[in-house]
Parts: sequence; C-alpha cells; structure tokens
Amino acid sequence: MQNNTLDVYKAEVLIKKYREVRKHSESICAPLEIEDYVVQPVVDVSPPKWHLGHTTWFFETFILKSYFKGYEEYDAQYNFVFNSYYETVGARVVRTDRGNLSRPSVADVYSYRDYVDENMLALLQTDEVTDDMCTLLELGLNHEQQHQELLLSDIKYILGHNPLFPSYSKEKTVPLQPVTNKHFIPIGEGIYEIGYKGNGFCFDNELGSHKVYLEAFEISDALITNAEYLEFITAGGYQDFRFWHSEGWDWVQQNNVSAPLYWHSIDGRWMYYTLTGLTEIAPDEPVCHISFYESTAFAAWKGMRLPTEAEWEVASAHFNWGTRWEWTGSAYLPYPRYKKDEGAIGEYNGKFMVNQMVLRGSSVATPQGHSRTTYRNFFHPRLQWQFTGIRLVK
Amino acid sequence: MQNNTLDVYKAEVLIKKYREVRKHSESICAPLEIEDYVVQPVVDVSPPKWHLGHTTWFFETFILKSYFKGYEEYDAQYNFVFNSYYETVGARVVRTDRGNLSRPSVADVYSYRDYVDENMLALLQTDEVTDDMCTLLELGLNHEQQHQELLLSDIKYILGHNPLFPSYSKEKTVPLQPVTNKHFIPIGEGIYEIGYKGNGFCFDNELGSHKVYLEAFEISDALITNAEYLEFITAGGYQDFRFWHSEGWDWVQQNNVSAPLYWHSIDGRWMYYTLTGLTEIAPDEPVCHISFYESTAFAAWKGMRLPTEAEWEVASAHFNWGTRWEWTGSAYLPYPRYKKDEGAIGEYNGKFMVNQMVLRGSSVATPQGHSRTTYRNFFHPRLQWQFTGIRLVK
Amino acid sequence: MQNNTLDVYKAEVLIKKYREVRKHSESICAPLEIEDYVVQPVVDVSPPKWHLGHTTWFFETFILKSYFKGYEEYDAQYNFVFNSYYETVGARVVRTDRGNLSRPSVADVYSYRDYVDENMLALLQTDEVTDDMCTLLELGLNHEQQHQELLLSDIKYILGHNPLFPSYSKEKTVPLQPVTNKHFIPIGEGIYEIGYKGNGFCFDNELGSHKVYLEAFEISDALITNAEYLEFITAGGYQDFRFWHSEGWDWVQQNNVSAPLYWHSIDGRWMYYTLTGLTEIAPDEPVCHISFYESTAFAAWKGMRLPTEAEWEVASAHFNWGTRWEWTGSAYLPYPRYKKDEGAIGEYNGKFMVNQMVLRGSSVATPQGHSRTTYRNFFHPRLQWQFTGIRLVK
Amino acid sequence: MQNNTLDVYKAEVLIKKYREVRKHSESICAPLEIEDYVVQPVVDVSPPKWHLGHTTWFFETFILKSYFKGYEEYDAQYNFVFNSYYETVGARVVRTDRGNLSRPSVADVYSYRDYVDENMLALLQTDEVTDDMCTLLELGLNHEQQHQELLLSDIKYILGHNPLFPSYSKEKTVPLQPVTNKHFIPIGEGIYEIGYKGNGFCFDNELGSHKVYLEAFEISDALITNAEYLEFITAGGYQDFRFWHSEGWDWVQQNNVSAPLYWHSIDGRWMYYTLTGLTEIAPDEPVCHISFYESTAFAAWKGMRLPTEAEWEVASAHFNWGTRWEWTGSAYLPYPRYKKDEGAIGEYNGKFMVNQMVLRGSSVATPQGHSRTTYRNFFHPRLQWQFTGIRLVK
Repeated sequence: MQNNTLDVYKAEVLIKKYREVRKHSESICAPLEIEDYVVQPVVDVSPPKWHLGHTTWFFETFILKSYFKGYEEYDAQYNFVFNSYYETVGARVVRTDRGNLSRPSVADVYSYRDYVDENMLALLQTDEVTDDMCTLLELGLNHEQQHQELLLSDIKYILGHNPLFPSYSKEKTVPLQPVTNKHFIPIGEGIYEIGYKGNGFCFDNELGSHKVYLEAFEISDALITNAEYLEFITAGGYQDFRFWHSEGWDWVQQNNVSAPLYWHSIDGRWMYYTLTGLTEIAPDEPVCHISFYESTAFAAWKGMRLPTEAEWEVASAHFNWGTRWEWTGSAYLPYPRYKKDEGAIGEYNGKFMVNQMVLRGSSVATPQGHSRTTYRNFFHPRLQWQFTGIRLVK
Repeated sequence: MQNNTLDVYKAEVLIKKYREVRKHSESICAPLEIEDYVVQPVVDVSPPKWHLGHTTWFFETFILKSYFKGYEEYDAQYNFVFNSYYETVGARVVRTDRGNLSRPSVADVYSYRDYVDENMLALLQTDEVTDDMCTLLELGLNHEQQHQELLLSDIKYILGHNPLFPSYSKEKTVPLQPVTNKHFIPIGEGIYEIGYKGNGFCFDNELGSHKVYLEAFEISDALITNAEYLEFITAGGYQDFRFWHSEGWDWVQQNNVSAPLYWHSIDGRWMYYTLTGLTEIAPDEPVCHISFYESTAFAAWKGMRLPTEAEWEVASAHFNWGTRWEWTGSAYLPYPRYKKDEGAIGEYNGKFMVNQMVLRGSSVATPQGHSRTTYRNFFHPRLQWQFTGIRLVK
Repeated sequence: MQNNTLDVYKAEVLIKKYREVRKHSESICAPLEIEDYVVQPVVDVSPPKWHLGHTTWFFETFILKSYFKGYEEYDAQYNFVFNSYYETVGARVVRTDRGNLSRPSVADVYSYRDYVDENMLALLQTDEVTDDMCTLLELGLNHEQQHQELLLSDIKYILGHNPLFPSYSKEKTVPLQPVTNKHFIPIGEGIYEIGYKGNGFCFDNELGSHKVYLEAFEISDALITNAEYLEFITAGGYQDFRFWHSEGWDWVQQNNVSAPLYWHSIDGRWMYYTLTGLTEIAPDEPVCHISFYESTAFAAWKGMRLPTEAEWEVASAHFNWGTRWEWTGSAYLPYPRYKKDEGAIGEYNGKFMVNQMVLRGSSVATPQGHSRTTYRNFFHPRLQWQFTGIRLVK
Repeated sequence: MQNNTLDVYKAEVLIKKYREVRKHSESICAPLEIEDYVVQPVVDVSPPKWHLGHTTWFFETFILKSYFKGYEEYDAQYNFVFNSYYETVGARVVRTDRGNLSRPSVADVYSYRDYVDENMLALLQTDEVTDDMCTLLELGLNHEQQHQELLLSDIKYILGHNPLFPSYSKEKTVPLQPVTNKHFIPIGEGIYEIGYKGNGFCFDNELGSHKVYLEAFEISDALITNAEYLEFITAGGYQDFRFWHSEGWDWVQQNNVSAPLYWHSIDGRWMYYTLTGLTEIAPDEPVCHISFYESTAFAAWKGMRLPTEAEWEVASAHFNWGTRWEWTGSAYLPYPRYKKDEGAIGEYNGKFMVNQMVLRGSSVATPQGHSRTTYRNFFHPRLQWQFTGIRLVK
C-alpha cells in the first residue's frame, strides 16, 4: 500500500512535477512548424518529434508496462521507432534513419503523449506507487529534462542550417549579463571530496563520493567572451597546428573549421545565428558552440589550460556558472566504486565511458532545477552543437 | 503581337493544359500528411515539397523572369533551394541535403505555386506570348509531368520504407489486366527508322530520326509476371553469379538484395508494399521495381535477352505497353546529329548520356498524354524505385 | 592422337609463341627493383608480381590441371592468391588487398613461372594436345599479352606516383612520328559490316559479325596532340561545366583534375612523367592518359564528337593507328548473337558489359601482334592510367 | 669544448649505446625478405623500411642538420618521405600512402642508415657534443627503441595477415613462464606519489611527479591467461552487449570480432599465429593482442575492473610485469604542470592526449632497458596489434 512507502504529500509533488516537466517539452516545441519536427540534418541531431516520442516511450516502457496492471500499449511499433539505444529492449531505428520517418505524424506523437500522460497520472493516483517506481519516475523526468536541452540544441541546428535562417522566437531573450571584471581565484592544494552525497536525485555517474588530491591552482571567475575568442581567430589560431591536438587538427582540416558553429563572416563582419535569427556578434557574451578541440587550442594559445572536473567542482562555489556547459580537461570515466544498474536502466551512463570528455555546469538551455555542481555531462570532443563555453585555469 | 505568332485558340489550349498539369501535381500530393512532404530517405528520392517547388521554379526562372516584364521574384532564396542540377543558374542545395530542409514550409511552397500560377496565367493572356515562350512552356509542362511520375515513385519509397507501412490511398487501384496468353512476335531483318518525326512535343534526345539495321528477332507481347520472377528467386537466381554482370553481382552482395524492391518474405509468404499498403503478391501482375541488373540476370537465366531500344521502338506497335517502364539493353547515348540547346535548357538531357541505360514505354505512374513510342527514359542500372519491368527477346 | 588434330608444325609454332610471350612478360619487368613488384597504389593498378603470377595461374588452372595427367599443383594457396575475378574457381584475394601481400616473394613467383613453363612445354610435346587445349592456349597467350600492357601501365603508375620519380628505362624510346598534316576523311552513308570474320584468334566479344547502318561522317586521320590539348586547358576547359557530362564534372571537382594524368605544372612550365623520367611536354606527340570524360569534354569544346566504334572500324583502313587506345562514343555492349562460353572462360568479357566505354586501336604499350581493327577494349569512363588518346569526328 | 660539458667517459657510453640501438633495429629486420619491408596492410602498420628510414631521419633532422657543421643532407626528398607526423618540419607522406612507395629501395634505406651513422659517430667524437645534443640523442635512441617494438608488431601483422602464414623466426622463443598461482595483492588507501623523479631519461609525459589519493584496492599478481580468456569467448562474451562500451559493441559488430587478433578457429580448434607460424593456443600463457574494448568487456564479465594508471604504478613493485602491455582504465591526459617542449620535439607526446587509453608495463617486444614503472604508453581503444594483455583489480 502506498501509505507504507510514500505519503500523500510526496505523490502530489511527483504528480505536479510530472505535469510540469511534460508540459515544458511541449512548450519548447510550440513555436515550430510541423515540418521542423521531422528533419535530422546530421546524425547527432534528432528530429523534435522523435524527442517527444522517445521521452514518452521511456515512461511507457519502464513504468507503465512494468507497474500498471492492465495497461495496454499504445502501439507496439513505437517501441521500435522511439527506442534510442537501449539494446535490452529490442530493435531500434538506427540513429541515422530517424530523419527518414515521416510517420508517426506529429499529431500522432502528441496523441501518444496524451495517452501515456493520462495513464501515468492515473497510476500515480493509485495505491500502487512504490519506491522503485518513484526512482524510475524521477529518472524519467530527469531524462526528459536532458532531452529538453537537446531539443533546443537540435532545433537551433535545424533552423540555423536552413538557408532561410528562420527565427525560432521573435522576442529577444534577456541578454546575458556581460562579462566585466575577471579575476583568477586561488584554490589551495589538498585533499578534497567530490561526487554526489545528498539525498535528492542524481545520476549513477555522480555517485561514489571520493577523495582527490589537488595541487594548488587558480581558476577564472568568468567565461571566455566572444571578443576574446575573436582575438584567437584573428591571431590565426585555426591555422597554427601547434595549439591543437593531432585529432583536433585533422578535424579542423577535414571540416574547414574556422570559427565556432553558427558564426558567418558576411562582407567582412562576423555574424552568428541565434534563436531569434542572424545577428551581429555580441562581444561581451560568453563564446558558445565550440568543440573540446577548440577549447583546448584556445587555452594553449593563452598559455593556460582547462580545469579538471575535480578542480571545477571544488572551485564552483566561488564563481557564477550556468550559461555555458564548460569543457573540462577530464575524460569521462567511472568514479571509484561505480556500479551500473541491472537491466536497461544500467545502459544509461556507463557504456559511454570511453572517448568522451566531461562538461560541468549547465547552460541557458538547461531546464530549471536540472543542474548541480556534481553533474557530469559528456560529449565527443568534436561536437559543437551544445551550448558550450570555456573557463580557464592557470 | 500574339496574333502574328499564335492564334487565340492555341493560347486557350495552353492555358487549359497549364491548369490541368499544375493541378494534377497537387492532387497527387493530396493524400499526404505534411510530414510526408519533407523527408528524403535516400539520395535518389526527393521530398514531395521539393518536387512541387522545383517544377514551379522552372516556370519562374525560364519563363516569368525572362518574358514577363515587371515580374517580381517570389523569394530570391528559392532559386537556391529549388534548383536541381542546372549549373548555369547558380548555386543549388546539394541533392543529399534536400531532406534536411524543414523550410520553406509546405504552406509556403503552395503559396509559391499560387503566386507563379497567377503570374503565368496573366502572362499567357497577354499579347506577349511568343513561339519561343511556348516551346519553353511545353517543356515546362512535360518537365512537371516527369516529376509527377517521380512524385509517385518517391512517395511510395517514403511510405514503403516507414516501419508503419502507411497506405497512400484507401481505394484499391483497378487491378492490372492479368497477363494470360503470351506470344513471341517475329520481326524481320532490315533497315528501320527510329526517333521522333512528328510535329508535337518531344525531348531533344528523341530527335535525329535515323536509320538502323536490325537483324531478325522475336519479342514477347507480354511482360514478365510476378509468378515468373518468383521462379527465378526460387531457383536461386540471386545466389548464382553466372547470371549477373560483375557490377550487378557486387550490387547484390553489398546490398544483400534477394528480391525486387518492396518485397518482404514474412513468415514464409511473399508480401509486397503497394500504395494501398502491405499485401500478398499478385502472381499474374507484371513484376515491378527491379533494377537493370536484375532484368538482365533474369533474362540470362531464361536464356534470352532484353530488346535494344531500336528493337523495342520498331516492334512497339505489335504489343500493349504502358504499365511498366521496360529496361532495354541499350546504353543512353546521343542519336546521330544530336545537338543540345544553348543555355540552361541544354542541360536537360545530354549531360546524362553516360553510364545509364534506356527504358522504353511508360508506367502506371506516368501521367496521361506523356508517353510515346520514341520516348527515351534513362536511369542508372542499380535503381529499382521506378515502376520498372521486363520484356524479353529471343 | 595429336596427329589427328594438329600437325607437328602447328605444335612447333605454339611452343615458339608460348616461349616468346612468356619471356616478354619477364623482360618487361627486368628493369624493376624487387620493391617495385609489390605495391598497389590504387585499386585499378596491380602489383607487377601479381600480373606475373596471375598469368601463370591461368595456364595452370585451365590447361595443366585439366589436361596434363599427373600434374601436381605448385602450391594450392596460389589459386587463392592469383585468381583475379573468376568466381567459378573459388575464393580470391580481393583486388584492394593485392598490395598487402609481401609473399609469395618475387623469387617464388619466378619459380612458379618456371615450374608451370616446364610443365606446359612438356605437355605441348606430348600427343595429348587437342583443339580444345589449343583454343585455351591461345586465349592464355592473348590474356598474358593483355597483362603485358597492364604491366607497363601499372609500372608507370607505380613509379610515376613516387615522389622520387624514378625512371623505368634509361634509353629514350624512339620518339613518335610527330603529327603534321591533318585531314578529315569522308566516309559515305550506307550499310557496313563489323565484327571479326577471320580464322585467327579473337575474343568472344568481337564475334557476331553484323551489319550496321551508318550516316555519312568525316573522321580525322590524326590524333589530338599535346599542343592541341593544352589549348583546351588554357581556354579553361576544366573550369567550364558546359563541356562535361554531369558525372564527368563531378569527377573533375572531386579529384581536382586539371590536366591529363602525369602532367605537372612546375614553376609555370608543363612537365610530364614518362617512363624515362620527368620531362618537358612534347607538343607534337599525341595526348595520352586521358579519361573518357576528358575526351568528350575536349570534343565538345571543339564542336565535334568521338567516333562510334562502328565508325572507327569502318574507317580504320584510312588512317594510321596504334599509338593510343582511342576512346569511342560507344558503350561496351554485346554484339547481336553474342554468346559467352560455358564455365570460367565465359567470365572473360560478357560480365563487364555495363557502364564501360569501348576503346579501339592499340597503343605503344600493346605487345606486337596483339592488335586488330575488330579488337574491343573497354574501361570505365573515369580511368586515365592506360595509354589513351583522342580522334575526332565531325 | 666538450670537456666543459661532458666527460670522455660519457661520450664513450653514448657511442656504445648508439651503436647497439642502431644495430638492434637492423637485426630485427634480418629475417625479412625484401618484399616484407614494403607493404602496409592497414593504416596503423608501417612498412619496416619506413621505420628504418624514419628513425634515421630523426637523427639527421634534429641532430646532424642542427649541430654538425658542414653536414650534407643525404637526400632532400627523404625529409618528405620519412617524416611521420611532425608538422613543424614540412610536408610528409600521409600515413595511408606509405605502403605505396616502392622507392627508396631497401638497399637505399640501408645506405641512408650507414651514411647517417658514420656522420653521427664522427660528430660524437668531436668536441662539439653539448648537453642539448645529448638530450636529443637520448630522445632519438629511445625513439628508435619505440620503433623497434613497432617493427615487431608490424612485421607480425604483415606476415600474420598473409594467406601463406610465413614464419618470421624458425626457433621457438623461450616459452613464457606459465601463470600458476594467482593472488590479489591488497594496497591500502592513502596519498601516493606517481610520475618520474629520477635523473635518467624519461619522456615529457612522465614528468610532473605528483600526489594522488587512492582508495584501497586489490590487484592481481598475474595476467589473464589464454585459458581464462577462452572461457569468456565460450560463455558468449562477444555476443552480449551488456559487457561492452557502446563504442566497443559497435566495433565488435562492424568488424565481426569474435576473438583476439591472430586467433583462428580451424576445424573446431583454436589456433593462433605467432612469429614462428600458426600453432595451437598455449592455455597458460597470458592472452595477447586484445583491444581496450575487449579488456574492459572481459573485466566486466568477471565483475572486476582494470587498474587506473596510478594504481598500477603504485602496486607495480608487488608483481612481475613485462610480457604484455597492460591496458589501464585511465585516459591519456597530461599530468599536472605538464609542459611540452618548444619546436618539433614538443610534438612528441602532448598532441596525442585525447581519445587514447594508457597502457603500463612493457611487453616481450619491448627492447631491453626501455621500460620503467613510470612509462606511459598509449593507444586508441580499438587497437589490437600491440602485445597487449589484461590485469584485473577488485
């Protein structure tokens, strides 16, 4: 019985959070044309309708089918269409094919969401809510929040790579607080403890709070701005192999990279695409949409380096963060005593722990309440399409 | 003045034909969901909205901009988006990128059509209609008819490669007349004349009517049926390299081809996807969606061969044709005295005259009034997605 | 018994020819370093030691193993290593892998040749020589002669793509007779007969002598010279899409082609690599090492065209040929009544009859006695590494 | 003057070491046929003659040209041919092209070695030897020793991928001490110091000795044997995605990996290629030629993990090592305070510090005197062709 495991208050909180998170995904998509929901311009970008379906499939597969007696699957084919990479739960549409699927239609995907939401809310009001289910529910909501950030990144990519440069939003977003005074904050050497220790939600990759020994270092309290990054470009940073990793240099050459993603040199002026359209670059805003390769080349040019993820976590109380995911110099590897869960949920994080770099903080695209100082985000070093930035250490 | 060059009657005929052809493209798309207009599952298939825009762009670029004083371009960017392969008229969206463009939206494309149609009809009612313009208009209408056939092929590909197998049309099409009596028609040796000699419209590749010497041959009055093709499959035709061109054999191996496109062996039964959905194979209908490689392998297995295009044209009066494009054994090459037009229109046919094979006849997807015995269609030998079939010669 | 089928004289002729042909292959390789025998810089070029082994394998497989009682295979593995593309006779080393094989060593390949030669000569002196065997022997010798030409082409490619530009031969070859007077020879319209009708050796693709109807045409009695081709380059021929097939234009763009193979613009002077090393271009010699795409672009620029293979064959008595393989405008397709042989020998020609263009004549690299006016050579339109040239028709 | 910087004794030691190291490279190649020196079957494997030339080029470029007055370059082209990846010193033959170069011949490469050796020994006997030069000399010798190990790995790859499976050496190597008693050694938690602190030679990536905090762990004193690894295979380890990184699983699928490199299942028995030829697998020898992906999948199957490089270094005094390079769970990243050298030498290590994993120890192929507990080897996780093995931690 629910009363044994969860009090009524907690159920209400969960129901409220469920409603809010689910609604937020849809509000992100509200400005889109139906056509925008469908395309997949590169393999890393998924069609918005796929995100809407996939996050729904998560609740259906891991909660409704397991815990809600008598639940009838919405459409058996959707399991095939909306699975992302969970090998445990059957065949899936390979990632490069997502953009080839005109059906299910956007209207069908919204119906699917409604159907699953009704059932989820019905389930949450029964006596059958257990601790296990709540754990999965929280994971599902955090999973959807991660996809909300991806939705924004992917929508920006879809519209920003269209020759018509359509705007996503008419209203200018509130401009970011321009970066003005910059200081380097000294942190002393010693043993520190990192990793998640609280009682709230966190991902399995943050667990295993553990001690690390750090040498003394100084970390900037400000992100690198567009103006500073432009100096690197102007100084020939993209033409000088000495600042780059060997792989990074190959990436620059093969893709003719000469600026962050969305930057265009038009008639001698640097412009960039933002969610409100094409506009002149704001010099004081933090640089965005750069790869790990670019971050480390910039740092090398400055004669500095990126923080490790431990340094970042230890120092994070001393600066503002949250506008850009900050590349660290740490590879994404398991913490001591890391254990992945049994079953499909265990595929969430551990299997990606090779050849990716950790990013810390969060970005303007991260949903509220989804960030914390122990959060370990990770991407391949070549990727630019997230809202990424640079903080230096010396 | 128009009266010098064209009489009123001719103008009316043209206006009527313009209206009909333009409307037919839209009626082909009527059953689609908006999402279906957008995707491009393989490079050879274009998104339906691209076809609608591209055929419109043709009239705008080659007629309105050249002949209609004061015409204002609908959107300068569309030239970039909807050009297909005309190098003469500027940059174009590379073919593999068409499926990445969510904009212009479907509604925008229809507005574009309306705008161009209004202007075209206005132009056609002026005194400024000239012979040159009529020639381009007829080319533009025939061009749009060609894209009508591609629209059907591409829609079938888009829906037929979706795991939900949505149907395009609820009503069963009238079944094709089953093939029953088959005979081989003997044609005597001698000098024949092929190529277009009439006064109506034809493409430049049909011109240059010329003599050919043919040896005696016998040609079937019927197309190969699904049942006959199934015998080839069952006899291991796809596993025996001896029947295949070397390139064809590589194609079979690399793509694991084991049947025509859209055929699926489900629980031991052969099914195929048709525009009304997945259904059991009709044994008496002519086989469809096969590559040139498959056609010649089948013919070799039968100990026969495909007709040359000259043989086909000479014999065509003696059999019914029009349900399948029929692969011939002729490479697509210029006729004697072939001359391509000046300018962009000259890019229509000549530059494709290498590494493609000629198909003759027409198919169930060909618009009415668009076929004739001198028509030279052509595709790469590996392609299956057109409504292609086999007629044998011995 | 041999006396029934072949007289002693014929056997002696065959033995003599066998010795000569086999020796000639080795004399072609005499100037090579051992290292030159091993590499395969691109897929179309085979390592010289592979040619030496493969031609030997042909005699072993099709004659010794079939006809010589008690013959012991030299090494069962060689069947795997030296088969080229005969699917009938088992697995083979895929073409792209040939350059990865350091063994069998060059010495081993020569031992293999010696062993097979001894056995062949022994067999030829027995009573067991039959007509069938003679047919295969002649095919084997012609096959080896074809590989002699490939040997020279491949050696030139291997040395000509080495940054040290080593020379193959110290002595300058006798310069080709410079092209001086050029005339166009008129040929009247009418029915002509083409294809092989003699009693000597020919390939199966030349058989089926048949009538063709030709319109009147004029054909040049001279090949296009380097000087003439240079005019095309200087006039921007490689930068103007209008002269090119669509595929040819893609080939130019993707490979940055701007001149024939082996041409290098060094300090403003055009040089080319020849078998004696890097040297200045001889303006009066016939242009060499051009693709079909380049041939047709050049012809289009001149406002002329290439001959068809029938035109070439009909007119060939009226001009000198034999220094360059001449691209024709004909696709490589079967002649009427073409029948391929049973078994592995049947794979010789027929299975390549798609997506290749016919070349006629022969070249400076063709072994003596291996050319005739009905000979049908064929290559993919993109290939430049053979000794190819241009003759125009108007 | 030399006496100011180096005493005579040190010079003699250097001369002796130079002679020994240079001679050892040639003795490794002694059993090869000339053909074996030339080929490059995959991009990661270089032709042996390239290794011999490249190590020589290092001494010529960084020492003779800089420090030996009047030195005349052997051949200016060799700079182009034998540079590996040093962007600072000009164009280079791209790695995939090395196997296409038949010249310089093997004899030329040996002449090049002789010429450089004579000059190096002459220089070493002058008064001009300085500390800087000695630093470069030691780097050059360690560099050549690294290539000696690569030579053996590459020779094994070249011969082991030849269908004839030629043996490199007739004599069986002394069998490795079979692994018998296995124990897990406990190491207590605490602060440890890792990195190079001595006065001898080390690479820049080992410098920056620094403290690390380690939790308690237990490490095996023995490597995983073939027998143990076979259990993993038999248990279906290559078919169960749960044990693999996502990238590792893709690697298994795309390459059909089902065993370590060089293992062949022949008539139901597991054989492997060794430098003496194809032979039955020795169950008690440590498993070899496995990728990082395989190492971690095996560890996951055992419910254990790989050591981090810090754990390995701290525990290394407690077990025998030196037969297999041991994959660690550590990504290859800079140590604190890592600084790369100025100029070309600075390209040695730092630019590879992304997307590679660290290996510790050394292998049977490592030259004597070239290993130490602080040595940081690194390779991409997919690579199998080095002599790699597995040690577990729990």
